[in-house]
Amino acid sequence: MINSLLNKKSINQLDTVKVKQGRFVNFTDSVSVEEPLEIRILFGSTGNKTEKNISITMRTPGNDVELAIGFLFTEGIINSYKEIKTVKSTEEGTPLLQENRVIVELSDGYNPEIGNSDRNFYTTSSCGVCGKSSIQAIKTVNKYQNIKKKSLKINTEIFYALAEVLKKTQSNFEITGGIHASAIFDLEGNLNAMREDVGRHNALDKLIGYFLINNHLPLNDKILLLSGRASFELIQKASMAGVSLIASIGAPSSLAVSIAKEFDMTLIGFLKKDSMNIYHKSLKHSFY
Amino acid sequence: MINSLLNKKSINQLDTVKVKQGRFVNFTDSVSVEEPLEIRILFGSTGNKTEKNISITMRTPGNDVELAIGFLFTEGIINSYKEIKTVKSTEEGTPLLQENRVIVELSDGYNPEIGNSDRNFYTTSSCGVCGKSSIQAIKTVNKYQNIKKKSLKINTEIFYALAEVLKKTQSNFEITGGIHASAIFDLEGNLNAMREDVGRHNALDKLIGYFLINNHLPLNDKILLLSGRASFELIQKASMAGVSLIASIGAPSSLAVSIAKEFDMTLIGFLKKDSMNIYHKSLKHSFY
Repeated sequence: MINSLLNKKSINQLDTVKVKQGRFVNFTDSVSVEEPLEIRILFGSTGNKTEKNISITMRTPGNDVELAIGFLFTEGIINSYKEIKTVKSTEEGTPLLQENRVIVELSDGYNPEIGNSDRNFYTTSSCGVCGKSSIQAIKTVNKYQNIKKKSLKINTEIFYALAEVLKKTQSNFEITGGIHASAIFDLEGNLNAMREDVGRHNALDKLIGYFLINNHLPLNDKILLLSGRASFELIQKASMAGVSLIASIGAPSSLAVSIAKEFDMTLIGFLKKDSMNIYHKSLKHSFY
Repeated sequence: MINSLLNKKSINQLDTVKVKQGRFVNFTDSVSVEEPLEIRILFGSTGNKTEKNISITMRTPGNDVELAIGFLFTEGIINSYKEIKTVKSTEEGTPLLQENRVIVELSDGYNPEIGNSDRNFYTTSSCGVCGKSSIQAIKTVNKYQNIKKKSLKINTEIFYALAEVLKKTQSNFEITGGIHASAIFDLEGNLNAMREDVGRHNALDKLIGYFLINNHLPLNDKILLLSGRASFELIQKASMAGVSLIASIGAPSSLAVSIAKEFDMTLIGFLKKDSMNIYHKSLKHSFY
């Protein structure tokens, strides 16, 4: 279940010069690959299909299908995996398809939520609320919003080890020093799955895409760990997957905290080896 | 010239619980504000004006006008400050304007580069190549690309102090622990200007907007310092402002290095107190 990119295409070797104490030393450095991925959908009824460009996101190659499906789900364009008929990508061994492109064919007759011509879903490394036609519309409708939240009793001691587990699993960060990760842990602190990407929201979309494909949503009794800061878009995407408990190693933004309060999600920030800050605690959660 | 947000609206005080050694302690924490900003343009000839939504970006309030103008410039929608007639924003004291909105009125008869209906410029915290209608189109046309680059002799010792200067100047990072910065230094290591934002590309757009408004472009004899990682979009935006020398405290992505090579810009990564990595050195630059 655990997955690192482990993909030659996700890392590039580059000739680099290190400068230290006045000396210039040539060496080969590893950097995270950043490349555009075009996400397209094909929809309509048999014999009358329309293909549409939904998003161009700057991502690290690897888990492209999960990324595309996760993105369509967290942006509210699809509501379940059943709405997908086929997926074509070079990753899946469809050599005729142009590189860096995924085409998701929706089930016959399913009309995705992109009717409004004002909406165009362009994204990049850290984008996620793209394509909403006005400020009022940036909140995505949350499928799991009205599902009764699970009551969880949470051991605070569990959290302190999570960052270390993430770090050990994040092989590409170890190599490049520059890639984000999102991971799902159970309440005993066991790692279920992890995804990496140069874009924070891509790492999360890959992770959610994986759980959607494997029919493991909602993630309402899990811990979502974010390697960096917690921004609005990440909390919103998490909420789309039914996540109610989020810990980030970095700082939260004001809007991230507001959204956590609005959806009654527990949001932890500045998770360290021996401390953490709770910015909002869900009414359904108790810590011990 | 140096500027920190120094704006009450850029920081929120929140009731927070710190958990440490099994104890739960209430305290007030400061977090960076993240709010959407809608960037609109008004263009056409007198009596026949069209208003168009260009971008919604998740930004930290403060320097909104610089952000809007910088964005329009680095995305290639305008080519000079002269193409702007008026700017309306609540920041500028136009109370009737809806909050979190900037309207940039272009000079009469100037037609911005948004004719293609496939293009819609939606952005978020870390977005920057938004609105390009295909993967091939994500490279923005660079106004300064064909200008002869300046020959620069660069003292490597200058760089090691820059991060410390940035840290001391970044008042909001000191307070929140979660905000990006972009800064311009001269070749002697003097800080010219600095801007902060929760979105890396917003911090850079604010900075470039400032220099555009003050008629100080191109920045071809300056050092651009990035507080985090160097991604494609940041290098591309920098190149639009004529920057040829970039140092980032974090890692570069593969595409950032590719763009630096293509535009022959010097790109330094992992800048520390006593070392740095040079991923590409411009033919016009020499280090000593």
